[in-house]
Amino acid sequence: MTARYDIDALKRRLSGIRTEDNPALVKQKSRDFFWYSPTLKRQLDHVVADIIVSPVSEAQVLETLSAAHALGIPVTPRGTGTGNYGQAMPLSGGIVLDLAGFNKVTSIEAGRYVAEPGAVLAKIDQETRAHSRQEIRLHPSTYHTASIGGFIAGGSGGVGSIKWGGLRDWGNIISLRVATMEGTPRILELQGEDLHKVAHAYGTNGIITQVEMPLGPAYAWVDVILGFGELRAAAEFANALGEQDGLALKNLAVVAAPAPHDYFLRHRKFLPRDSHCVMVMVADFAVESMLAFARRFGGSQVLMRSDTLTAEEAKGLPPTFELGWNHTTLRALRVDPSITYLQVLYPFPNQVDLVDKIHARFGDEVTCHLEFVRFDGKITCFGLPLVRFTSEERLEEIMAIHEEMGAPIFNPHRYTLEEGGMKQTDEVQLAFKREADPQGLLNPGKMIAWEDPDYDYRSGKTFLFKALGEAGVGA
Amino acid sequence: MTARYDIDALKRRLSGIRTEDNPALVKQKSRDFFWYSPTLKRQLDHVVADIIVSPVSEAQVLETLSAAHALGIPVTPRGTGTGNYGQAMPLSGGIVLDLAGFNKVTSIEAGRYVAEPGAVLAKIDQETRAHSRQEIRLHPSTYHTASIGGFIAGGSGGVGSIKWGGLRDWGNIISLRVATMEGTPRILELQGEDLHKVAHAYGTNGIITQVEMPLGPAYAWVDVILGFGELRAAAEFANALGEQDGLALKNLAVVAAPAPHDYFLRHRKFLPRDSHCVMVMVADFAVESMLAFARRFGGSQVLMRSDTLTAEEAKGLPPTFELGWNHTTLRALRVDPSITYLQVLYPFPNQVDLVDKIHARFGDEVTCHLEFVRFDGKITCFGLPLVRFTSEERLEEIMAIHEEMGAPIFNPHRYTLEEGGMKQTDEVQLAFKREADPQGLLNPGKMIAWEDPDYDYRSGKTFLFKALGEAGVGA
Repeated sequence: MTARYDIDALKRRLSGIRTEDNPALVKQKSRDFFWYSPTLKRQLDHVVADIIVSPVSEAQVLETLSAAHALGIPVTPRGTGTGNYGQAMPLSGGIVLDLAGFNKVTSIEAGRYVAEPGAVLAKIDQETRAHSRQEIRLHPSTYHTASIGGFIAGGSGGVGSIKWGGLRDWGNIISLRVATMEGTPRILELQGEDLHKVAHAYGTNGIITQVEMPLGPAYAWVDVILGFGELRAAAEFANALGEQDGLALKNLAVVAAPAPHDYFLRHRKFLPRDSHCVMVMVADFAVESMLAFARRFGGSQVLMRSDTLTAEEAKGLPPTFELGWNHTTLRALRVDPSITYLQVLYPFPNQVDLVDKIHARFGDEVTCHLEFVRFDGKITCFGLPLVRFTSEERLEEIMAIHEEMGAPIFNPHRYTLEEGGMKQTDEVQLAFKREADPQGLLNPGKMIAWEDPDYDYRSGKTFLFKALGEAGVGA
Repeated sequence: MTARYDIDALKRRLSGIRTEDNPALVKQKSRDFFWYSPTLKRQLDHVVADIIVSPVSEAQVLETLSAAHALGIPVTPRGTGTGNYGQAMPLSGGIVLDLAGFNKVTSIEAGRYVAEPGAVLAKIDQETRAHSRQEIRLHPSTYHTASIGGFIAGGSGGVGSIKWGGLRDWGNIISLRVATMEGTPRILELQGEDLHKVAHAYGTNGIITQVEMPLGPAYAWVDVILGFGELRAAAEFANALGEQDGLALKNLAVVAAPAPHDYFLRHRKFLPRDSHCVMVMVADFAVESMLAFARRFGGSQVLMRSDTLTAEEAKGLPPTFELGWNHTTLRALRVDPSITYLQVLYPFPNQVDLVDKIHARFGDEVTCHLEFVRFDGKITCFGLPLVRFTSEERLEEIMAIHEEMGAPIFNPHRYTLEEGGMKQTDEVQLAFKREADPQGLLNPGKMIAWEDPDYDYRSGKTFLFKALGEAGVGA
């Protein structure tokens, strides 16, 4: 790596702020979990920042941004680096802004809390539970390590989405404070319509310095795994269960046989290899109602319920949400490194049919994994199917077939906002970047609309960020 | 009224239990709010019990049932008599079992509470809020007076249904204790599938002696009233608002102009006569998000928000939920005694179109009032339209037209379970009555399947309970 930026000058300007330029440590904090994707692994494995800067307050964030702006050094913000889209990878080098130490919960009230961006989700819950038996509404399966700022900047939903929908939905973020990337950085307070400017923008157009988020009631959640002989029966049951408005559920997933048995090693003793599994997080007081409902479905079998396990049986079992979302992929990858995944929406109201048809078409190459959610007021499911990877071309083909069959893909094998999302320019986010980051120093390369306004999303090609190509290693 | 039953013998057997046979007081407690319906008013106005018995414990309930059983005296249970279907009207005279004094909240935990049946809803909330900032999930607009036992025995949903669906939904009742009507009455504990046996059975097949119910989080609820120039725009907005999974709403109603101005007298100053109103109960922390969402809808205007009223402006204003559900009807009735109402389901997904078409057809004769709810996992709306009453024949005709157009009616002008509900025998409730009330002494006349197993629901006639006819007054 050539000395692209004046890092020494930066260090002099940031004397009161923790920085790190030991190459091994810089490399470690220049990586997120992009490597779930073989495509991103090929493209991004060499990416590395020049320095890690770790502010622990809004003032230190502003100071860092001001210095970086003066020196023309790019800044890629990072919570704890648990994302999967290369969102925290510093494609142009420069600064990784490590916000993990800027992490206090600063207030808790009925239905809401305020925190600094680096606060880890499980840590927030610990405090809000202790304070008033409340908990965060939504979290990824990386609950124990992910930060709230990173989740807002790069996540979309997860555990809790069966109840509350996604982060994009009105009400799931209350307000944000955001620092701009300017000579004299400003702090903007965003709420309502303005939240769309920075939520899920990968930190390309502002640095989140404070979050105000809603809370839900914290219950004693019970994990129940039900087994079905047929995938369709499992999906139909899960869909119907999701539609039970009175049942306090927190997560609801389906994983097709034999993946649960083959990949959920700690749970293996409960999981016959031919069982298609429905994994439910349900409040303790709703378990009996849920099971009574399940008994109406032929062929369902209770394989495990956490509230009746002996201490011996429970030992070492992760919570079921750590069998779901992208932890399903992680557990599969650990057993079989050839596995990767997709992100699919099966739109309401034909979701169960579509799941059936798509999986019938692909057979063993694509193993069904569904996460049921509320989406625009209806129950439907996202898929994070496990794909037996053979080539990038075949992966593209599999995705194209999904879309042809009516299931939109949110491509997790792309590092740009647009290609991973709606495949079109987000004018609101672009306009805000013009205002908040006029020099384009925040997380360069992630917003195509900024880098190449004329880019044609229908070209069928992958966007390649120039600076990434210039780095010359492996791209 | 002839002495049909040996009331003196009953009083001797119940020496430790409070009874009342002063005719004025008996008459008062023999009535519920059936008179919202001109039909029920004509049929039931003369109905009166022989005695009121007011047990304050499960033991006293059992003692009362045992004595009544021995003497062959019918028992009609009653909470606080706020129902509208004649459910608590003692059609065969005998005992009104007044459970209003059997009313303690006996335990509160995370997500649930246990109470005696006579506990008033607002009183339960007071205790659960103080205990752990929790509140009951669902309540009728008679929150301040209705009892939980009466609500379960005769209600279906109400405030909170936009979030949790209805009482019929899995999870909205956790468990019930029920006393049977036998020589030696038993206590049965019901949960899961068995709850359907007695929920919404008007106490015809058992007396609820204990309820275990779920709780939701208690927030600071704000009342917001939005005005629209067109009814269709109001309904479309409300429907879309209901589908916002992330917004913490508690109630969501639409009342067409000019009813809000004409009937909501305390709020009149806020309500232009030509405004179709959307009335929202929303958590304080979600108000800004909700209003930002509303700004996306052309023509919406904030007419009132309770969180910004001066003390002077707020003085004497009831909460908006007391403008909704059957309080809408009550307020209309107070201004115009010729008003009655219907109960309509506008089924998903065509609810807004159907509302539009139906109200275009009837014009001023039927004023639109919608309550949005979750129903089988989707957002749709019930209607409690205000009907300008002319004759029972015309009322029947209006209902028939609704059903022909695709909007099922739950007829509030009938006192039987079947005619007010699904117009068919509920085999589960009937079977349970055979088991729990073999002599048919509980709330006689309300379950057609018991009284006249061969009754033809397609006859187009109204079921007339024999004993009611025999009473000879006005039937």
